[in-house]
Amino acid sequence: MIAEIVSIGDELLTGQKVNSNARFICSALAGAGVGVKRIIVCADNEDAIAEQFADSLERSDIVLVTGGLGPTRDDRTKYSAQRLLEKELVLDQEVYARTVERYRRSGREPSPYLKRNAMVIDGARVIHNEKGLAPGMIIHCLERFQGHYLVLMPGVPEEMEAMMRSAIVPFFSEKSCTVIVHSHIKTTGIGETALADIIRVIEDNVPDGTSLAYLPHAAGVDLRVSSIGIDKEVVDKDNRKVVEAIAEAAEEFVYATSDITLEECIGRFLVSGGLKIAAAESCTGGLVASRLTDVAGSSRYFLQGFVVYSNDSKEKNLGVRSETLALRGAVSEEVAGEMAQGCLLRAGADMAISSTGIAGPDGGSEAKPVGMVCLGLANRKENNRVEIETTTFYTHGDRLRNKIRFSEAALRMVWKKLRDLQAQD
Amino acid sequence: MIAEIVSIGDELLTGQKVNSNARFICSALAGAGVGVKRIIVCADNEDAIAEQFADSLERSDIVLVTGGLGPTRDDRTKYSAQRLLEKELVLDQEVYARTVERYRRSGREPSPYLKRNAMVIDGARVIHNEKGLAPGMIIHCLERFQGHYLVLMPGVPEEMEAMMRSAIVPFFSEKSCTVIVHSHIKTTGIGETALADIIRVIEDNVPDGTSLAYLPHAAGVDLRVSSIGIDKEVVDKDNRKVVEAIAEAAEEFVYATSDITLEECIGRFLVSGGLKIAAAESCTGGLVASRLTDVAGSSRYFLQGFVVYSNDSKEKNLGVRSETLALRGAVSEEVAGEMAQGCLLRAGADMAISSTGIAGPDGGSEAKPVGMVCLGLANRKENNRVEIETTTFYTHGDRLRNKIRFSEAALRMVWKKLRDLQAQD
Repeated sequence: MIAEIVSIGDELLTGQKVNSNARFICSALAGAGVGVKRIIVCADNEDAIAEQFADSLERSDIVLVTGGLGPTRDDRTKYSAQRLLEKELVLDQEVYARTVERYRRSGREPSPYLKRNAMVIDGARVIHNEKGLAPGMIIHCLERFQGHYLVLMPGVPEEMEAMMRSAIVPFFSEKSCTVIVHSHIKTTGIGETALADIIRVIEDNVPDGTSLAYLPHAAGVDLRVSSIGIDKEVVDKDNRKVVEAIAEAAEEFVYATSDITLEECIGRFLVSGGLKIAAAESCTGGLVASRLTDVAGSSRYFLQGFVVYSNDSKEKNLGVRSETLALRGAVSEEVAGEMAQGCLLRAGADMAISSTGIAGPDGGSEAKPVGMVCLGLANRKENNRVEIETTTFYTHGDRLRNKIRFSEAALRMVWKKLRDLQAQD
Repeated sequence: MIAEIVSIGDELLTGQKVNSNARFICSALAGAGVGVKRIIVCADNEDAIAEQFADSLERSDIVLVTGGLGPTRDDRTKYSAQRLLEKELVLDQEVYARTVERYRRSGREPSPYLKRNAMVIDGARVIHNEKGLAPGMIIHCLERFQGHYLVLMPGVPEEMEAMMRSAIVPFFSEKSCTVIVHSHIKTTGIGETALADIIRVIEDNVPDGTSLAYLPHAAGVDLRVSSIGIDKEVVDKDNRKVVEAIAEAAEEFVYATSDITLEECIGRFLVSGGLKIAAAESCTGGLVASRLTDVAGSSRYFLQGFVVYSNDSKEKNLGVRSETLALRGAVSEEVAGEMAQGCLLRAGADMAISSTGIAGPDGGSEAKPVGMVCLGLANRKENNRVEIETTTFYTHGDRLRNKIRFSEAALRMVWKKLRDLQAQD
């Protein structure tokens, strides 16, 4: 079954609100085997709404509408639908009784509006609103629109969400005979084009019904593999096959085949290895520590972080030697290495990551340009020996982007180390 | 002029992403005197896209498209437009040269994709992509679509936003023959409804052509005052009058009447006062330091940060007393105060901010619930006396939102102190 969403509300067209309702509905329907093919945002205008309903009902099995069901003058949804479908509005006694009772319970005098609120389209399946007043409706449009469904819901997110969960998803799950499976492949350290190069052959040969989407973001690019079909077993198998092939071809860059963040992935390695981590940051300014502690339960493995902007603080807090700073400069692999080592020892950690670089926009030179970062990783070995690795990474962007990419490179270095350590076990 | 937005991308139809691009475009166009009447999200499918372009170009003066301009196979936008408009694709030498140069600078071998990337629709006004690869285009559809405009932009938000600001808004502003002035009022520590209450009378009495938009975000709410008209002097005056009235009515919450961040505002105070700051963080995990160092030139005033998750690290690094930790608990104003004092002294700073709280989802109790944070502010006075202030702030959200709001509350405390100090001078 194919669905489309019509969101009604001027506030969505003036940039005041983002259409988060549509996102919720898409997610919920995906789980019911219903694919959404279109989302339309439309103004609070009775003619525009009716016209949109006609267009949408013509081409889609299900049209889900949010908004415009409230009590005020600009709420036109119900009237547009009624006019288009040439149906009567009838009083739903149960909706009316429930809302009057709700008013009474909260000590309010039932408003005359409650009667208008309880008027529903004749023949509609009524969905009670557990979180608010306006009832939802599922209307089976038999005559004019080939048995397609028009679903009306309020625009208030918690009211709509409750209706989706309790009534609408179950209703269409039963009706839909298709299965849709989505999988995620999360990568780090590779751009969209390079990734496409690596997996070209796989992409050219995906089974029918399976498709691939690239989802680039500030720190990297993720992939989504979607498979659709009738037989759950076949759909699952097709999907898994593609995911496994990509994960193998891009192994070096794939940190997960589920929808988790790189910092969550690192957290799982640290917990399973019983390891504690610390961070020493210059140019990332606390962002590495902040990302590591974005993970619930990170206090189990994250010990502490140092944000050492000045040379003085690098020496005092981490024991970086003034000779190294003078000889190599603050932005150097030598300083990154000493930062990581000092951080590990002072925090009593098993692993420490450090960053020192030039986020920009100023402070770059030919030898050390804006977008350059030196990273250090200290790793405690047997007999308290400390192993140090360092690397240099280049990117180009504005200050905020550079910070994000530097932090991603730092987390990537940690992830790779943890993965290698686990492989050795 | 009437516009409509077409957002392309399966990730918007599966519920993975919310359509925040559309919101940005609506806001930006409002500023150019262009009203958006419809937003459509459409799948990555060449036929569906072409059909949608035709529908939209038929009824709207401007159709703005985001997404599907990337290098991979599922990026169909350019080809759909080319087919629909019956135009050739031609290589734009400048786009090609720029992208090759960008690859070279970052030490990568130019990929064969770069040539496909630089193919643009014949006759289009090309918009260079300062933040990424794919060029944008403004296509004037003379023959078939009554001189309407088709605008193609990438789907990556920062790339699209830069194009809107630098090229597209100015282009259509000029076409719409109107003068538009936007001002920003940046607030902290107040919600949308409370702010609306405070400025209701002003809002009810704005001059004709001036409008107000509330722009809520994770950390607070900003306002945009837009004035539109023919005469620049009148438009400027109308706009300024409203901005001044709001800034006065909501003085306690307004940190700027220009588009700067709270951390930039703090940076300006610190630079002008010749003051140095440091941060000691538990529950914010480095986010306060990271936000302070998001500001270009922050190395002039940001000395260092401590991320002290464990009790042990609070004692060792900041000199928090073990008795205070035992008696009051790690999440307490007493510990926050000692953290700030220790941080100030150890960093040799003039001011230090600290946070200790419960970001969740676990770790809360009745007395100290998830969403509670204690903040400390240490301020160096004459004769090296240190003044300590503490406060407790409550919010409720998931872990990431709590971290953002905690960091906002901490920065707000710093901002207020700096403002008061300056007022005393």
